Amino acid sequence: MLKVIAQDFIKPEAIDIVLPLYRELVEKTRQEPLCLAYDLFVDQKDPGHFVFIEEWPDRAALDIHCATEHFTRLVPLINAHQRQDGTVVLMDAVPA
Amino acid sequence: MLKVIAQDFIKPEAIDIVLPLYRELVEKTRQEPLCLAYDLFVDQKDPGHFVFIEEWPDRAALDIHCATEHFTRLVPLINAHQRQDGTVVLMDAVPA
Repeated sequence: MLKVIAQDFIKPEAIDIVLPLYRELVEKTRQEPLCLAYDLFVDQKDPGHFVFIEEWPDRAALDIHCATEHFTRLVPLINAHQRQDGTVVLMDAVPA
Repeated sequence: MLKVIAQDFIKPEAIDIVLPLYRELVEKTRQEPLCLAYDLFVDQKDPGHFVFIEEWPDRAALDIHCATEHFTRLVPLINAHQRQDGTVVLMDAVPA
Protein backbone atom coordinates (compact mmCIF):
# COMPACT_ATOMS: atom_id res chain seq x y z
CA MET A 1 0.00 0.00 0.00
CA LEU A 2 1.28 3.44 -0.92
CA LYS A 3 0.26 6.43 1.18
CA VAL A 4 0.59 9.92 -0.28
CA ILE A 5 0.35 13.37 1.24
CA ALA A 6 0.17 16.14 -1.36
CA GLN A 7 0.08 19.72 -0.14
CA ASP A 8 -0.90 22.85 -2.04
CA PHE A 9 -0.46 26.47 -0.99
CA ILE A 10 -3.09 28.57 -2.78
CA LYS A 11 -3.26 32.35 -2.94
CA PRO A 12 -6.03 33.51 -0.56
CA GLU A 13 -7.84 35.41 -3.30
CA ALA A 14 -8.03 32.24 -5.46
CA ILE A 15 -9.57 29.85 -2.94
CA ASP A 16 -13.10 30.22 -4.36
CA ILE A 17 -11.72 29.56 -7.83
CA VAL A 18 -9.90 26.35 -6.93
CA LEU A 19 -12.56 24.76 -4.67
CA PRO A 20 -14.80 23.55 -7.51
CA LEU A 21 -11.71 22.31 -9.35
CA TYR A 22 -10.66 20.38 -6.26
CA ARG A 23 -14.15 18.95 -5.83
CA GLU A 24 -14.20 17.67 -9.41
CA LEU A 25 -10.73 16.20 -8.96
CA VAL A 26 -11.78 14.38 -5.78
CA GLU A 27 -15.04 13.13 -7.28
CA LYS A 28 -13.42 11.76 -10.45
CA THR A 29 -10.36 10.34 -8.68
CA ARG A 30 -12.52 8.38 -6.28
CA GLN A 31 -14.11 6.73 -9.28
CA GLU A 32 -10.73 5.41 -10.45
CA PRO A 33 -10.73 1.61 -10.00
CA LEU A 34 -7.36 1.60 -8.23
CA CYS A 35 -8.05 4.49 -5.86
CA LEU A 36 -8.17 3.22 -2.24
CA ALA A 37 -8.61 6.61 -0.59
CA TYR A 38 -8.47 10.21 -1.78
CA ASP A 39 -9.47 12.87 0.71
CA LEU A 40 -8.95 16.61 0.79
CA PHE A 41 -8.41 18.66 3.91
CA VAL A 42 -7.68 22.28 4.71
CA ASP A 43 -5.36 23.64 7.37
CA GLN A 44 -7.34 25.24 10.21
CA LYS A 45 -4.71 27.98 10.43
CA ASP A 46 -4.27 28.60 6.70
CA PRO A 47 -7.31 28.45 4.38
CA GLY A 48 -5.05 28.31 1.33
CA HIS A 49 -3.14 25.28 2.61
CA PHE A 50 -4.86 22.24 1.11
CA VAL A 51 -3.75 18.69 1.92
CA PHE A 52 -4.61 15.54 -0.01
CA ILE A 53 -4.29 12.27 1.87
CA GLU A 54 -4.28 9.47 -0.64
CA GLU A 55 -3.95 5.72 -0.67
CA TRP A 56 -3.01 3.58 -3.68
CA PRO A 57 -2.13 -0.10 -4.03
CA ASP A 58 1.30 0.86 -5.43
CA ARG A 59 3.28 3.46 -7.40
CA ALA A 60 1.95 2.15 -10.71
CA ALA A 61 -1.60 3.01 -9.63
CA LEU A 62 -0.51 6.50 -8.65
CA ASP A 63 1.18 6.94 -12.03
CA ILE A 64 -2.04 5.91 -13.78
CA HIS A 65 -3.89 8.51 -11.70
CA CYS A 66 -1.42 11.22 -12.68
CA ALA A 67 -2.04 10.41 -16.37
CA THR A 68 -5.85 10.56 -16.21
CA GLU A 69 -7.81 13.17 -18.15
CA HIS A 70 -9.16 14.79 -14.99
CA PHE A 71 -5.73 15.01 -13.33
CA THR A 72 -3.89 16.38 -16.36
CA ARG A 73 -6.65 18.92 -16.99
CA LEU A 74 -7.43 20.06 -13.42
CA VAL A 75 -4.05 20.10 -11.66
CA PRO A 76 -2.48 22.73 -13.96
CA LEU A 77 -5.60 24.89 -13.51
CA ILE A 78 -5.21 24.59 -9.72
CA ASN A 79 -1.44 25.07 -9.74
CA ALA A 80 -1.89 28.36 -11.61
CA HIS A 81 -3.13 29.76 -8.30
CA GLN A 82 -0.36 28.57 -5.99
CA ARG A 83 1.50 31.11 -3.85
CA GLN A 84 4.37 28.60 -3.45
CA ASP A 85 5.24 25.18 -4.81
CA GLY A 86 3.27 22.26 -3.52
CA THR A 87 4.88 19.20 -1.92
CA VAL A 88 4.30 15.48 -2.34
CA VAL A 89 5.50 12.75 0.04
CA LEU A 90 5.21 9.06 -0.81
CA MET A 91 5.14 6.93 2.30
CA ASP A 92 5.07 3.37 3.55
CA ALA A 93 3.23 2.29 6.64
CA VAL A 94 5.41 1.60 9.68
CA PRO A 95 4.46 -1.95 10.70
CA ALA A 96 2.92 -2.20 14.18
CA MET B 1 -13.92 15.39 12.82
CA LEU B 2 -10.42 16.68 13.29
CA LYS B 3 -7.64 15.40 11.02
CA VAL B 4 -4.04 15.79 12.12
CA ILE B 5 -0.74 15.35 10.33
CA ALA B 6 2.25 15.33 12.65
CA GLN B 7 5.72 15.06 11.14
CA ASP B 8 9.00 14.18 12.83
CA PHE B 9 12.50 14.44 11.41
CA ILE B 10 14.70 11.94 13.24
CA LYS B 11 18.48 11.71 13.07
CA PRO B 12 19.39 8.71 10.87
CA GLU B 13 21.49 7.11 13.58
CA ALA B 14 18.55 7.19 16.03
CA ILE B 15 15.91 5.47 13.88
CA ASP B 16 16.37 2.11 15.60
CA ILE B 17 16.06 3.81 18.98
CA VAL B 18 12.81 5.60 18.20
CA LEU B 19 10.98 2.79 16.35
CA PRO B 20 10.00 0.84 19.49
CA LEU B 21 8.99 4.11 21.15
CA TYR B 22 6.78 4.92 18.14
CA ARG B 23 5.27 1.44 18.19
CA GLU B 24 4.34 1.75 21.85
CA LEU B 25 2.88 5.21 21.22
CA VAL B 26 0.76 3.89 18.33
CA GLU B 27 -0.39 0.82 20.24
CA LYS B 28 -1.45 2.75 23.35
CA THR B 29 -2.97 5.66 21.44
CA ARG B 30 -5.18 3.33 19.43
CA GLN B 31 -6.57 2.06 22.72
CA GLU B 32 -7.74 5.56 23.69
CA PRO B 33 -11.56 5.60 23.59
CA LEU B 34 -11.69 8.80 21.50
CA CYS B 35 -9.04 7.83 18.96
CA LEU B 36 -10.65 7.40 15.51
CA ALA B 37 -7.42 6.74 13.61
CA TYR B 38 -3.73 6.90 14.44
CA ASP B 39 -1.32 5.62 11.81
CA LEU B 40 2.39 6.05 11.34
CA PHE B 41 4.15 6.26 8.00
CA VAL B 42 7.71 6.83 6.82
CA ASP B 43 8.83 8.86 3.84
CA GLN B 44 10.13 6.59 1.07
CA LYS B 45 12.87 9.14 0.35
CA ASP B 46 13.84 9.90 3.95
CA PRO B 47 13.87 7.08 6.53
CA GLY B 48 14.04 9.61 9.36
CA HIS B 49 10.94 11.48 8.22
CA PHE B 50 8.02 9.96 10.14
CA VAL B 51 4.44 11.07 9.56
CA PHE B 52 1.47 10.46 11.83
CA ILE B 53 -1.96 10.69 10.23
CA GLU B 54 -4.51 10.98 12.98
CA GLU B 55 -8.24 11.40 13.32
CA TRP B 56 -10.07 12.66 16.42
CA PRO B 57 -13.69 13.65 17.02
CA ASP B 58 -12.56 17.16 18.00
CA ARG B 59 -9.77 19.26 19.53
CA ALA B 60 -10.77 18.27 23.06
CA ALA B 61 -10.08 14.62 22.25
CA LEU B 62 -6.67 15.54 20.85
CA ASP B 63 -5.89 17.53 23.99
CA ILE B 64 -6.80 14.50 26.13
CA HIS B 65 -4.44 12.41 24.00
CA CYS B 66 -1.61 14.91 24.49
CA ALA B 67 -2.08 14.65 28.27
CA THR B 68 -2.00 10.84 28.47
CA GLU B 69 0.76 9.02 30.33
CA HIS B 70 2.04 7.36 27.18
CA PHE B 71 2.15 10.59 25.18
CA THR B 72 3.83 12.68 27.89
CA ARG B 73 6.38 9.92 28.54
CA LEU B 74 7.17 8.80 24.97
CA VAL B 75 7.08 12.00 22.92
CA PRO B 76 9.94 13.71 24.80
CA LEU B 77 12.01 10.52 24.44
CA ILE B 78 11.38 10.56 20.67
CA ASN B 79 11.90 14.31 20.30
CA ALA B 80 15.33 13.97 21.90
CA HIS B 81 16.42 12.38 18.61
CA GLN B 82 15.06 14.96 16.18
CA ARG B 83 17.40 16.55 13.64
CA GLN B 84 14.91 19.44 13.20
CA ASP B 85 11.64 20.50 14.78
CA GLY B 86 8.59 18.47 13.95
CA THR B 87 5.41 20.01 12.50
CA VAL B 88 1.73 19.55 13.31
CA VAL B 89 -1.17 20.60 11.09
CA LEU B 90 -4.77 20.46 12.31
CA MET B 91 -7.19 20.16 9.42
CA ASP B 92 -10.85 20.06 8.52
CA ALA B 93 -12.25 17.95 5.71
CA VAL B 94 -13.20 19.87 2.56
CA PRO B 95 -16.83 18.90 1.96
CA ALA B 96 -17.41 17.03 -1.30
